[in-house]
Amino acid sequence: MLVVGAHSADFVWRAAGAVARHTSRGGEALVVALSYGERGESGELWKQPGQTEENVKCIRHEEASKAASAVGARFEAFDLGDYPLRVGPEAVDRLAELMRDFAPHVVLTHPEHDPFNPDHPAAHAAVAQARLLTSGAGVASGFRTAPPSEFLVFEPHQPELCGFTPTVYVDITPVFERKVEAMAAMAAQQYLQEYYRQRAEQRGNHARKVTGDAGIRQAEAFQRLLPNVVEAL
Amino acid sequence: MLVVGAHSADFVWRAAGAVARHTSRGGEALVVALSYGERGESGELWKQPGQTEENVKCIRHEEASKAASAVGARFEAFDLGDYPLRVGPEAVDRLAELMRDFAPHVVLTHPEHDPFNPDHPAAHAAVAQARLLTSGAGVASGFRTAPPSEFLVFEPHQPELCGFTPTVYVDITPVFERKVEAMAAMAAQQYLQEYYRQRAEQRGNHARKVTGDAGIRQAEAFQRLLPNVVEAL
Amino acid sequence: MLVVGAHSADFVWRAAGAVARHTSRGGEALVVALSYGERGESGELWKQPGQTEENVKCIRHEEASKAASAVGARFEAFDLGDYPLRVGPEAVDRLAELMRDFAPHVVLTHPEHDPFNPDHPAAHAAVAQARLLTSGAGVASGFRTAPPSEFLVFEPHQPELCGFTPTVYVDITPVFERKVEAMAAMAAQQYLQEYYRQRAEQRGNHARKVTGDAGIRQAEAFQRLLPNVVEAL
Amino acid sequence: MLVVGAHSADFVWRAAGAVARHTSRGGEALVVALSYGERGESGELWKQPGQTEENVKCIRHEEASKAASAVGARFEAFDLGDYPLRVGPEAVDRLAELMRDFAPHVVLTHPEHDPFNPDHPAAHAAVAQARLLTSGAGVASGFRTAPPSEFLVFEPHQPELCGFTPTVYVDITPVFERKVEAMAAMAAQQYLQEYYRQRAEQRGNHARKVTGDAGIRQAEAFQRLLPNVVEAL
Amino acid sequence: MLVVGAHSADFVWRAAGAVARHTSRGGEALVVALSYGERGESGELWKQPGQTEENVKCIRHEEASKAASAVGARFEAFDLGDYPLRVGPEAVDRLAELMRDFAPHVVLTHPEHDPFNPDHPAAHAAVAQARLLTSGAGVASGFRTAPPSEFLVFEPHQPELCGFTPTVYVDITPVFERKVEAMAAMAAQQYLQEYYRQRAEQRGNHARKVTGDAGIRQAEAFQRLLPNVVEAL
Amino acid sequence: MLVVGAHSADFVWRAAGAVARHTSRGGEALVVALSYGERGESGELWKQPGQTEENVKCIRHEEASKAASAVGARFEAFDLGDYPLRVGPEAVDRLAELMRDFAPHVVLTHPEHDPFNPDHPAAHAAVAQARLLTSGAGVASGFRTAPPSEFLVFEPHQPELCGFTPTVYVDITPVFERKVEAMAAMAAQQYLQEYYRQRAEQRGNHARKVTGDAGIRQAEAFQRLLPNVVEAL
Repeated sequence: MLVVGAHSADFVWRAAGAVARHTSRGGEALVVALSYGERGESGELWKQPGQTEENVKCIRHEEASKAASAVGARFEAFDLGDYPLRVGPEAVDRLAELMRDFAPHVVLTHPEHDPFNPDHPAAHAAVAQARLLTSGAGVASGFRTAPPSEFLVFEPHQPELCGFTPTVYVDITPVFERKVEAMAAMAAQQYLQEYYRQRAEQRGNHARKVTGDAGIRQAEAFQRLLPNVVEAL
Repeated sequence: MLVVGAHSADFVWRAAGAVARHTSRGGEALVVALSYGERGESGELWKQPGQTEENVKCIRHEEASKAASAVGARFEAFDLGDYPLRVGPEAVDRLAELMRDFAPHVVLTHPEHDPFNPDHPAAHAAVAQARLLTSGAGVASGFRTAPPSEFLVFEPHQPELCGFTPTVYVDITPVFERKVEAMAAMAAQQYLQEYYRQRAEQRGNHARKVTGDAGIRQAEAFQRLLPNVVEAL
Repeated sequence: MLVVGAHSADFVWRAAGAVARHTSRGGEALVVALSYGERGESGELWKQPGQTEENVKCIRHEEASKAASAVGARFEAFDLGDYPLRVGPEAVDRLAELMRDFAPHVVLTHPEHDPFNPDHPAAHAAVAQARLLTSGAGVASGFRTAPPSEFLVFEPHQPELCGFTPTVYVDITPVFERKVEAMAAMAAQQYLQEYYRQRAEQRGNHARKVTGDAGIRQAEAFQRLLPNVVEAL
Repeated sequence: MLVVGAHSADFVWRAAGAVARHTSRGGEALVVALSYGERGESGELWKQPGQTEENVKCIRHEEASKAASAVGARFEAFDLGDYPLRVGPEAVDRLAELMRDFAPHVVLTHPEHDPFNPDHPAAHAAVAQARLLTSGAGVASGFRTAPPSEFLVFEPHQPELCGFTPTVYVDITPVFERKVEAMAAMAAQQYLQEYYRQRAEQRGNHARKVTGDAGIRQAEAFQRLLPNVVEAL
Repeated sequence: MLVVGAHSADFVWRAAGAVARHTSRGGEALVVALSYGERGESGELWKQPGQTEENVKCIRHEEASKAASAVGARFEAFDLGDYPLRVGPEAVDRLAELMRDFAPHVVLTHPEHDPFNPDHPAAHAAVAQARLLTSGAGVASGFRTAPPSEFLVFEPHQPELCGFTPTVYVDITPVFERKVEAMAAMAAQQYLQEYYRQRAEQRGNHARKVTGDAGIRQAEAFQRLLPNVVEAL
Repeated sequence: MLVVGAHSADFVWRAAGAVARHTSRGGEALVVALSYGERGESGELWKQPGQTEENVKCIRHEEASKAASAVGARFEAFDLGDYPLRVGPEAVDRLAELMRDFAPHVVLTHPEHDPFNPDHPAAHAAVAQARLLTSGAGVASGFRTAPPSEFLVFEPHQPELCGFTPTVYVDITPVFERKVEAMAAMAAQQYLQEYYRQRAEQRGNHARKVTGDAGIRQAEAFQRLLPNVVEAL
């Protein structure tokens, strides 16, 4: 499983439960952050007098690594800069190369649109392109390919305004404490911990309503961008 | 698994493979036809001189029963009339009662829109309402309920014009011969057999492209109307 | 060509130019009004003291007949009542029967949605159903059919809010005076004459912009609901 | 302000804050419940042995009246039955007559679609039609009209799946305790109180993000169905 | 209030009334033109023999300044070239810096799509990105921010084909003469003056229909891209 | 008629019939390939040991020229590279210049979206921009223009997932053998010949269903992006 976020903390709020669920079953997960969100998403840190961009990045790297560990994933940073995140051809190629090496069965990233954030759509576009450059057209190619992967987007902060419609709820009840731990590692964005704890409970409520399964307490929502191929319904 | 069609042959073209896949694994399947399609969809039969509606219905009942058998399903007809199919409150209640008794894990029917057929949307509306009357609001109710079921629509004849976007491909390669047999039973609509054989191959091509699995030869396409709740991605 | 409006004046504002263009080339056109719009759309008439519904209908019949004549069409009224227009199964069947007899090559009516008018969507639904009951499934049927017709909706009063997107502009420049004459016949809705004169000019501007043809001065906009089959592009 | 819900508790979860905000400024508010939700949405009550529909309705009436009082509104029940709620022509006319008498400046109800509830869309359709029958076509009419009103839908339980996109956030911070009190009155649906308390906080978070106004703690989301006419931006 | 157009005349046709309404109440307005529209939108000027790009720009600058004055706004030109307008990172940063200095409460620009104009979508993308770079994520940032602003798009030439749906009508009746004066200043595009005079009247008709307020004669239409936060409905 | 594909074979599968229909009536057709698809879409060729990019391009050029000849068109290659196809400003200008010289009455290319192919959307964007740079704003311009052209997109491989909805079916029955011949020329993608033969038959079925014309055996589907201006319906 590969999770690509525009900023180093994105995977925590939006997909840490799905990551933990995957790794707790023995799966491997890699988190890539295209930037540290050092300028636009590190509110608490910038309140400290004399703060510098380098120091913010350092702290953010540590926090994200710790959060990734909490859910059993590796963390890798591209450090491309934020606000704006601009992902050039070389970075797309680097991401594609990483996909060829890692050969994920699932790729998770931001939705295509976000009227509140300039970097999330840039991350989406880069991931979508890298993934296609990796998979080729399903035939023999003049370049190295990886097996096709599933492609989903995780939940944005204001879902309806990003055109996000959930098509998959992942039951994260058994690993919820690990998501809480991962969120706790993001000291610079404490105000989001309660927000995403509540959101997990609401999505849990939604998943219970769909299935009638009272055992589901917390869930994460995703939107699948490509059809799901199954053996039977 | 419950499949509800506006006319007795609808399930054959659009979902016989998914039915066969389910029953071949030991699952139970029930096909309900709201009408026989006796007036509007029995072209070949009406070319016979002296043909009557009763006789057409008779033949259509036999054909559909045979097709259902071919894929391991039971067939039940509501005989509500076609062109137009008008499903009143009593028929909705009958359908709801049937759902309470049968308690399907999946319900399949037509999409909500079809600019080429007046009966398909009527069937969709009836099934959607009956299903909700059956499931209640996920809490204790003042009426008998069934466990919540998944809800998908099968592929219409001209998918893009019905607003149909596939979200699930079912690989029907292992049971394709049974679908062919079911289609062969619909003698009154022979012209559709080649059409839906080709369509199964095209959807197989699409499913191969998504998964890279060269073993998939035929598939059927469905659109899930409610999110899928899963344990992990 | 068959034009069906919820109220007797609808065809004038929205399609009189297309009707005139068709009849001026020798085509036949029939206008059906499901109601006279006697309660909700006869503003000026109700300002007269002692006005009655019967009298309003009478005047509206005359006006509509005159307007239809101006553009070379016949006018027929179903008189089903307005605000609300409720089109029952019998009226749908009557409309279908009329379609079987008249066998139009094009059917024009209101769009499916209109947040400002309760009767326009009711008219759309009735026309769409009658048309499908008439055309059958493209195979031999157990009922009398008419050849398939094209199906378009004409422009509503506030197009964007009705989900109307033009896909066809009809150049009505050569017959615009006949549309003006038809509009002038609707004495009860004088305030709309200037509105739709301006609208014809704007659509003319749009059509000029699409084609570069400076000769187009007035146009009417339509949205085609089914694909157009052509011999070549 | 007029709020119409399919069931007697709907207004509490979804619009009690906006009602309280309006009445606390001296505005008048009327809540209409088309049914009591006695069969499908009274979970706790049906767990009591020997429970009857009449008794459930009684309790629900009291609860809703108390909740309405808490936010300064009057409560009126149409008692049309739930699961399914079927709103016939007479009930639409009764609602229209009520609108003519009350002449609300704003009408609030459910969104047009809800794949989890059969009664919410029925309520929407009835309110939309009654409102149009009341407002007429903006000209003199053959029936009594009320001044045009604004028309908004309130937030459904699973917003993205109902096609709900917020276009207005109402800051309910100053009256949030009154909404809490109204929710507390709905003893039969205690499990929803925490859910909608959290939702108010999330919408507060969203409204803060849009405005930068840190004073907003709780909000309710609405979608406006018609354009807003303003004097200046 | 900040209005950003791809070409120097865009603000006149689409937003001059809203600007005049704002300034006539004592508000401040700044108009930014990313280009002069010197190549693609200066039809009349290019008919003069020996015309040069420099001269066209000069005339366009004067016209736009005069039009801006007529509605009480300042005019500033970025002169980035048109057909195509290509807005690089530096120009986005310049626009962001301007937003930080000017701190507008409302930002107006073109819609995201326009199948008739290559420059309008480029302007939209630049404005949207600059605005987000300015507002930050609603928390303390590593860069200078401005308070969040409202974000609306103004009406394009063929609204339905640009996906434009009005959500706000601004009543410009009291300042319409100032808009007429501003339009008159655009001598190079006289053919648009009548077009946009008519459009203002039609939007006035629409706004009257929504409100029943017969005093509204002219209006401009806008689409709000972010929810509106209000104190009460 | 101008057809622009991202790769040299695209026009064959998707538009060869419409091209043949046009040229068989004496029309002129030019096919432009932005790349040869040498890396991502030349599966069979890369199976040969020692294959090189140059050699693949050579073969692809020959194949495409032969296919173009089969349907009476000229073939021109831009050779911009594939997977990824990156179309810079110079290539857009070259395309625009070509459009000014060739002055096509119709431009055909890929749809705007394709979740399976990174190059198709890039081709669409380039063609759309070049076409607008060519047509100008419908007024005298400071650059050379061509007369406005119609703009349609051809059918992608998985239509629903690319947001493709057919609005025009071209009956290619009389020229189908020429399309078969063109497809046969694409030796490197033999697996697609059967796929697109079947698709032509399905679209023929759809076109028959729309028109009732039993003579239509094969068709191609297109989506028109701009309204069609006609003299009469």
